[in-house]
Amino acid sequence: MSRPLTAKGAATRERIVSAAATLVRAQGAQNTGLDDIRASTATSKSQLFHYFPGGRADLLYAVAVHEAALVIADQQPELDRLGPPPSWRAWRETVVRKYREQGRQCPLRSLTSQLADSDPRVGPLVASMVSDWHALLLAGTTRAGATAPDALATSVLAAVQGGAGLLIATGELGYLETAVDLAIAPLVAAA
Amino acid sequence: MSRPLTAKGAATRERIVSAAATLVRAQGAQNTGLDDIRASTATSKSQLFHYFPGGRADLLYAVAVHEAALVIADQQPELDRLGPPPSWRAWRETVVRKYREQGRQCPLRSLTSQLADSDPRVGPLVASMVSDWHALLLAGTTRAGATAPDALATSVLAAVQGGAGLLIATGELGYLETAVDLAIAPLVAAA
Repeated sequence: MSRPLTAKGAATRERIVSAAATLVRAQGAQNTGLDDIRASTATSKSQLFHYFPGGRADLLYAVAVHEAALVIADQQPELDRLGPPPSWRAWRETVVRKYREQGRQCPLRSLTSQLADSDPRVGPLVASMVSDWHALLLAGTTRAGATAPDALATSVLAAVQGGAGLLIATGELGYLETAVDLAIAPLVAAA
Repeated sequence: MSRPLTAKGAATRERIVSAAATLVRAQGAQNTGLDDIRASTATSKSQLFHYFPGGRADLLYAVAVHEAALVIADQQPELDRLGPPPSWRAWRETVVRKYREQGRQCPLRSLTSQLADSDPRVGPLVASMVSDWHALLLAGTTRAGATAPDALATSVLAAVQGGAGLLIATGELGYLETAVDLAIAPLVAAA
């Protein structure tokens, strides 16, 4: 980013990223070119290069940032309220609903698997999203008074990741539901 | 497969698949062409098409079958011996060692993410590998006398999948170790 955007500029940029994210979700990153994005956002080539000086690579990275933020945002506000037993059940419902809607497509995963080789910023972006997510779960297990809050947060995070991976692999949501139920059992039973 | 291969033919085919798998692991499926595989296996074009009538797509699918079988084979014989408490610790060590050696690359995952769109056989192959893996874990939780063996097998499977996903995302092995430890805790504590 060479200089800060005005509020209007930031809004335009966000509108472009959001439309590009929709396109990438529908047709995959490798099949999404700058011309598709220009057409769907009614922006000119010079406008696109104003916001994304590196062109397509810059824009796809911005889409990855957008999708990484959504992974956390889709779990809020329940993720921020974790602590007492009912809060874990409420969060579990939110997570299961999100993956049920999403089905076998994980937008961030398909994007990163395509960009990881070409864009060195993608690896740190995903690692930082994982770290943020773990920190929010850890705040929850700590508020819950768990005896090993860090390990328990890791166990819950891995259950979601693993359940989502098994959903992608098989199309079945049951793995996710069961894995998260068992991972949060000590937090729900603490009542 | 138009007709069964002779023992010698099957051995040659396996040698080609194994060499192709090594190439795909090193340079990725998208960067691996038939010419690379011919060069590294010293096979002629007509030989390759004898074993893989569909050409590159057939060969890459055979590599995916090979990698899917390795996911299970890499955990054996410990996976087949699951039951009493020490068996879970032994299997856990085998799994952690395999992922430590493998690091951030999951050969099956990178292959399937590249082939899934183009080859309709890849989805069922991965689903069947997951189902086999779950069945072997379920046999273990059943022999262990767990009260909910199916759910516990799912929880252990998701912990490995999730831990492996977090290893790929962050480069850190600790998530896998912790997640599997917590998932097998009821089986180890049953002593």
